[in-house]
Amino acid sequence: MKIGHQELQRFITHVFKKKGMSHEYAEICADVLSFADLRGIDSHGVARLSGYLRLIDTGRINVNPTVKFEQRKKTQLRVNADGAIGLLSAHLAMLECIKITHDYGTAWAGIFNSNHFGAAAHHAVQGFAHNYIGFAMTNASPLVVPANGIERMLGTNPICVAIPGKNGKSFILDMATSTAANGKLEIAQRQKKEIPDGWAIDPQGNSSNDPHILSQNGALLPLGSDSEHGFHKGYGLSAWVDIFSAVLPGASWGPWAPPFVSFLQPKSDAPGKGLGHFVGCWDMDGFNEISEIHDQLDDWMNRFKTSQSLQNQEVLIPGEPEARMQAFRLENGIPIVEEVWNDLMNISAELNVTIK
Amino acid sequence: MKIGHQELQRFITHVFKKKGMSHEYAEICADVLSFADLRGIDSHGVARLSGYLRLIDTGRINVNPTVKFEQRKKTQLRVNADGAIGLLSAHLAMLECIKITHDYGTAWAGIFNSNHFGAAAHHAVQGFAHNYIGFAMTNASPLVVPANGIERMLGTNPICVAIPGKNGKSFILDMATSTAANGKLEIAQRQKKEIPDGWAIDPQGNSSNDPHILSQNGALLPLGSDSEHGFHKGYGLSAWVDIFSAVLPGASWGPWAPPFVSFLQPKSDAPGKGLGHFVGCWDMDGFNEISEIHDQLDDWMNRFKTSQSLQNQEVLIPGEPEARMQAFRLENGIPIVEEVWNDLMNISAELNVTIK
Repeated sequence: MKIGHQELQRFITHVFKKKGMSHEYAEICADVLSFADLRGIDSHGVARLSGYLRLIDTGRINVNPTVKFEQRKKTQLRVNADGAIGLLSAHLAMLECIKITHDYGTAWAGIFNSNHFGAAAHHAVQGFAHNYIGFAMTNASPLVVPANGIERMLGTNPICVAIPGKNGKSFILDMATSTAANGKLEIAQRQKKEIPDGWAIDPQGNSSNDPHILSQNGALLPLGSDSEHGFHKGYGLSAWVDIFSAVLPGASWGPWAPPFVSFLQPKSDAPGKGLGHFVGCWDMDGFNEISEIHDQLDDWMNRFKTSQSLQNQEVLIPGEPEARMQAFRLENGIPIVEEVWNDLMNISAELNVTIK
Repeated sequence: MKIGHQELQRFITHVFKKKGMSHEYAEICADVLSFADLRGIDSHGVARLSGYLRLIDTGRINVNPTVKFEQRKKTQLRVNADGAIGLLSAHLAMLECIKITHDYGTAWAGIFNSNHFGAAAHHAVQGFAHNYIGFAMTNASPLVVPANGIERMLGTNPICVAIPGKNGKSFILDMATSTAANGKLEIAQRQKKEIPDGWAIDPQGNSSNDPHILSQNGALLPLGSDSEHGFHKGYGLSAWVDIFSAVLPGASWGPWAPPFVSFLQPKSDAPGKGLGHFVGCWDMDGFNEISEIHDQLDDWMNRFKTSQSLQNQEVLIPGEPEARMQAFRLENGIPIVEEVWNDLMNISAELNVTIK
């Protein structure tokens, strides 16, 4: 099945409105999700919609939050998301950072009491019209072990840095800090294939090739995979994200990060409130003339694109595959896998929101 | 051979002074180098001294620089290092960021026309007395391929994030963005051992186990090692560092980053000036009460330290091994390998600076 980008946005907006969200907030959430689908980050798009609705039904997501901004320093905010969906709270926090950046050059927000924030890149690119470099990270349900550990202590905790270039050619790094994200295991499940060594371990810490290992108390490995290949670095990055997103503003960190699925309850002895995010931006103009940076960045990209590559391989600029997908899907529509389509049909029927 | 920390500092200070550096600047450089030795980052300590001296002799390092700060926004600086050694320019830029952070909560500096900046962690911890979180990155001579590439395009480009905790228990992530740094290959060379797959490739892009492969036009792999294990992430991180450190302020980026060794000339068609760094800090107090963050961070560390580990292994906090080494070497002195000791003896004789 395929769906047009605008139709998908319209559908998601109406679904959130039926759940009691304001039109303005529902449109923001629809934007964040359809952005992910457009760019081929299918794991963070409309495929998550039914999950969000269940979290709304169980009261874990507040559809009418009053997001509170505490400006503790001229360029720093602590944001209480009031139980909002992260798609919304991270977006609002980023808009606030952009306003502050107009005056000071940079601004930063730590957000607590929040929920899943979708694709980090959507938040990080919000200041592109002003040539602001965006930064976004979030903690997430524990699935990943520390280096040398066998206990799920960290999420796939992404880091996103988005640097606006000229003529729409931008640098957008948006990466999970585990070797493989959960979505890659799901693809292997569907294809009934084994997963490679270095992605996951069983509960005893042995390497596992079973794509279903996470449902058997297994865990993902941090980027680097093992001690010989620097998994202390992937662990360090993931820990950085957890501390910035949760320890700083007062969200639930590490093994207490609330689970995405509604059938698992957050632990009752949590050290903080909800999930946490960290977003912010730098005015590019604060480091040099924008035209000069844009010319250099363009040269940088061209030099990397034309560097020598492995046979039949291509050196890519971070964000380039997603930009290509965005252009293609804007033109050709967004493919929806059967399982997700059935979900959307059920939502459509239950909430009486048409979809075509 | 062993040397006390203070004696090492004294020696390095006098050596730089003999080369024409002011006492103040020489002390800063000695601090940065001996800090690395103290923490067991031997590759970035006094072992580099003879290399720096050769760069001074060939005129590539300016011992009497006038470092110029251009404050382009309230919280952002462009810094012209005037050919300074990076040990000094990054330090001065960080001190300027700390001053600005007193007023605004955060501050950031892009530095160009610089040289090797030593151990990133030294710069990042400068604001700890104020409970400022530090950030430091630098580009470096090209040794690393992009994902899918076979050409040396990036340095081992480190990222450092330093978060001050209570009772001196801090989180200090300081990591190269390649799977293995050059120092690990040098250890294998000394031990006459092969290096594992996933560290380096030969000029055709084949995996190499030869620890000498870099001297045969080989290259290092980015963190992740191969496409199955996410080397596009290590490449993306390294590219981020290169763009922030060099493209933004106007240093020489990618394959044009000046070589550390004095016998290789920087390329004449360089797109910018010298090496580049990016440093800055956030006031911890801008995100929540410091006492609250400190308590949470302490709990975070304790929870991670006591999480289940592989048999006979230990889950470590980023920076913990270096902090242990610092305590040990402060007490017991800093061991110097024979090759480096001979270097120091030669310097001592040539410049008439005593060492004991």
